[in-house]
Amino acid sequence: MAAKEYSAWRKKIHDIIYEADTPSGKLFDIILLILILLSIIFVMIESVRGLSPKVYDLLYIGEWIITIFFSIEYILRIISVKKPWNYIFSFYGIIDLLSTIPLYLSFILAGSNYLLTVRALRLLRVFRILKITRYIGESNKLKIALLQSRAKILVFLFAVLITAVIAGTLMYLIEGEENGFTSIPRSVYWCIVTLTTVGFGDIAPVTPVGQFLATIIMILGYGIIAVPTGIVSAEYTRSKDTNYVHVNTQACPNCNATGHRDDAEFCYQCGEKLNTEDS
Amino acid sequence: MAAKEYSAWRKKIHDIIYEADTPSGKLFDIILLILILLSIIFVMIESVRGLSPKVYDLLYIGEWIITIFFSIEYILRIISVKKPWNYIFSFYGIIDLLSTIPLYLSFILAGSNYLLTVRALRLLRVFRILKITRYIGESNKLKIALLQSRAKILVFLFAVLITAVIAGTLMYLIEGEENGFTSIPRSVYWCIVTLTTVGFGDIAPVTPVGQFLATIIMILGYGIIAVPTGIVSAEYTRSKDTNYVHVNTQACPNCNATGHRDDAEFCYQCGEKLNTEDS
Amino acid sequence: MAAKEYSAWRKKIHDIIYEADTPSGKLFDIILLILILLSIIFVMIESVRGLSPKVYDLLYIGEWIITIFFSIEYILRIISVKKPWNYIFSFYGIIDLLSTIPLYLSFILAGSNYLLTVRALRLLRVFRILKITRYIGESNKLKIALLQSRAKILVFLFAVLITAVIAGTLMYLIEGEENGFTSIPRSVYWCIVTLTTVGFGDIAPVTPVGQFLATIIMILGYGIIAVPTGIVSAEYTRSKDTNYVHVNTQACPNCNATGHRDDAEFCYQCGEKLNTEDS
Amino acid sequence: MAAKEYSAWRKKIHDIIYEADTPSGKLFDIILLILILLSIIFVMIESVRGLSPKVYDLLYIGEWIITIFFSIEYILRIISVKKPWNYIFSFYGIIDLLSTIPLYLSFILAGSNYLLTVRALRLLRVFRILKITRYIGESNKLKIALLQSRAKILVFLFAVLITAVIAGTLMYLIEGEENGFTSIPRSVYWCIVTLTTVGFGDIAPVTPVGQFLATIIMILGYGIIAVPTGIVSAEYTRSKDTNYVHVNTQACPNCNATGHRDDAEFCYQCGEKLNTEDS
Repeated sequence: MAAKEYSAWRKKIHDIIYEADTPSGKLFDIILLILILLSIIFVMIESVRGLSPKVYDLLYIGEWIITIFFSIEYILRIISVKKPWNYIFSFYGIIDLLSTIPLYLSFILAGSNYLLTVRALRLLRVFRILKITRYIGESNKLKIALLQSRAKILVFLFAVLITAVIAGTLMYLIEGEENGFTSIPRSVYWCIVTLTTVGFGDIAPVTPVGQFLATIIMILGYGIIAVPTGIVSAEYTRSKDTNYVHVNTQACPNCNATGHRDDAEFCYQCGEKLNTEDS
Repeated sequence: MAAKEYSAWRKKIHDIIYEADTPSGKLFDIILLILILLSIIFVMIESVRGLSPKVYDLLYIGEWIITIFFSIEYILRIISVKKPWNYIFSFYGIIDLLSTIPLYLSFILAGSNYLLTVRALRLLRVFRILKITRYIGESNKLKIALLQSRAKILVFLFAVLITAVIAGTLMYLIEGEENGFTSIPRSVYWCIVTLTTVGFGDIAPVTPVGQFLATIIMILGYGIIAVPTGIVSAEYTRSKDTNYVHVNTQACPNCNATGHRDDAEFCYQCGEKLNTEDS
Repeated sequence: MAAKEYSAWRKKIHDIIYEADTPSGKLFDIILLILILLSIIFVMIESVRGLSPKVYDLLYIGEWIITIFFSIEYILRIISVKKPWNYIFSFYGIIDLLSTIPLYLSFILAGSNYLLTVRALRLLRVFRILKITRYIGESNKLKIALLQSRAKILVFLFAVLITAVIAGTLMYLIEGEENGFTSIPRSVYWCIVTLTTVGFGDIAPVTPVGQFLATIIMILGYGIIAVPTGIVSAEYTRSKDTNYVHVNTQACPNCNATGHRDDAEFCYQCGEKLNTEDS
Repeated sequence: MAAKEYSAWRKKIHDIIYEADTPSGKLFDIILLILILLSIIFVMIESVRGLSPKVYDLLYIGEWIITIFFSIEYILRIISVKKPWNYIFSFYGIIDLLSTIPLYLSFILAGSNYLLTVRALRLLRVFRILKITRYIGESNKLKIALLQSRAKILVFLFAVLITAVIAGTLMYLIEGEENGFTSIPRSVYWCIVTLTTVGFGDIAPVTPVGQFLATIIMILGYGIIAVPTGIVSAEYTRSKDTNYVHVNTQACPNCNATGHRDDAEFCYQCGEKLNTEDS
């Protein structure tokens, strides 16, 4: 799709929907955020029993209004961008789609409208709107720290799971079905509840031998918790404070890439001219 | 208000109430601390049922005596300072006011006398009285470390909340009302109980699918706990040991600023002469 | 056993079973992993009550097929290696043996087939198959960090146990049998549940004095949790990033040592010629 | 008391009881350890109900034998040392005394024999017997790290307690007595259970407002847990690896000081000649 085919009104829509620098773009984003929050609250309230039928009717209407708004927004997002497939298969593109489907689906499948809470993921856009580059920098640093400790975390998770399977089987054999450990999967579930120091107490060992084994599992869990913390902490301490350039919240009208430098005139990814003149 | 208007008795009161260097000031502060502790204990005991009526009467009288003392102290604090509004709208000024109101309010609103425990915040003055500058330095370092990791903590909290909303909805759909997950807000509450590894056990998954999802949430929570710890730990390791000067506990009679250097003769904030000659 | 006695077919078997570089070796390892996972799932499902008898029959047959396969594999492992005793008494050798015994044992001892979940330990081979040297490096680093903090962790564990014994006795004396603290061992168990912040709630203090002591134990546990985390974290931060050479997954046909350099032609442990020409 | 008054047999006893380098000293220490462990196990078993009366009789006799042994040992410790008061008022001297009293006390006060578990503290001697200087070094490092972060930990504890008092009062007002929050002290107890992520679940919020406040408390507790961990971790990372000299387990016959250098001939504390010739 060449740049000349890209008409003025589509560019206008792109400015409003994708950018947060211009007044209209900012207003749009704030309205969007409020609607997302409202729709999540609506779904939550709807699940509460014992309210008057009028409230349910109002919530139902509200949900539909917001869903229609989101559907139109989704279509406009596709139309206004030069490479729509890039958007559709991007992280936000998939979330935006998932945020509209559940209500339409509720005609066929009862209860699926509760899945509207997936809209919570849309709230991640808040960082763009707050225009606080620092937050993006921080979450990037978090991402890097997590990626670098990925191998360590995998080794660690593996150790936890193997421990849980073996200790769970032992607890099943020791405690037996009469004490709540009705099957090995349930015992493994209990083991993870204990290893992670959550400790619901819905199942708890009763026999002295079981309590002794539980003690060992708990102290093990106590020691294990130190490992991921130490890993992330060390990774964080080591990471040098990388230099940040000030980036704006503009999105490339062609490939939809974000995070351009404030003084950028062309997209760093596809070389497309950015909408810098009107902001 | 000029310095000459500032009469000798007001200066005397200021010395006693605001400073902890002079013998009289120290005595006043210690009496204050004991009264604060006593009043909190009184309120706590009062809430216990099944004591003899005489005890409640005594506690009631005790609370009133302390409240009247605090009221007089509050008025004296306003009178003795040169810029009373600075005090009234300061952190401690608001706490001091909130510490006297609840009992007066209890004439109108039953039960509001329990809010007297807000007096616990007055205990923060203990650091001044102990005159251990180090503690102030430490809490400042803590404050700085927390402020510097603010962005990281916000990103992290956001992640926790979005996870809780989505996982809570799934648990509501999987477990349903018959297993205690009576509404989405309640499920979200359960999710946070689990993610933070608190695990009350008032609500617990019963179905195998629910327990499987709970397992994932717990391991997630286990991993997430590593993040803020790592952040604070790294921030702490990085922070250089800043040099501390020895500060005293005097307060400026004009602007009420504290934390003056031991050899200071003038307030670092408003240039007012400090009461250094008599201490 | 000299190298010439080492016949071609035994070398072939060694290649398939012990190595993960050749196509046939890789295929074998993947089949092995799937069978391990399947057998664990079979044992887990078997422990669930209320399924149709047909399912139990199928699971029983499945378990036997996998166990016979594992038995043959175990024998082949012994035959194909030059120094069989090295393998038999190695970590993996013992696990491999333990993975086959329980089902044979179940003829004599009912319920012992559940011990088949010890096969979960065989899953540790996954790291070899994934051929991700990094994981081996990481688990080595973890091992080193844990070994270096061994003395610290022992001191710490000792402190926890002594605290639990003394606090447990006090709780037994304070709360007594009517509140669930039926004996000192049970009280000690409760103390460890509390110190590790697991908190099942199957036993909980009821008297005010007991709750006060519980509060102190909890805050202590909260502080203690910081110690192992800090230790591991510090150990990790200090450890320099050691240089890794790229190692392959070949095993020496003579002494069974693994972790040879990619360009190695002879075993670093016994000097035996490695099977490098056919991989 | 001059050195010549110090007779040979007292020196012999001193060698056996206080030192762990000589064969007889080592044997004595190991017997001591076994007796300590046995006596703790005896007390624990005695508290279990439902055993045959014969067992209780045997345990009772066993306890008396060990107590008499400990009493004689205590007297010998006093006799054999040159400055007995130094020993009596030392940390170990007080523990040794406390370890013998409870059983004698049980004639007057029923149940006081359970306090024999205070003997667990005697187990701290294990580090001397294992003769692993490293452990002493490690526990010293732990002690230093804790001492250096003392101010930070106090500030932190203060914050936790003030938070618990205020949040506890709010929970009492919101939930009320019908939901288990029967008094403010009990609510404060619940608050600490929640802040430390223990979460027994004996008391749990029921009203939506209470659950919302609980959510905030939990996330707060989640954040707070990061602080002490970060502190200890940072303190540990910063601490340079101090040089250790190899110390032996000899004790000065005059002032009882331990931790002498391996090549020491005179006590570093009082200048007394050490028993180096016979070890």
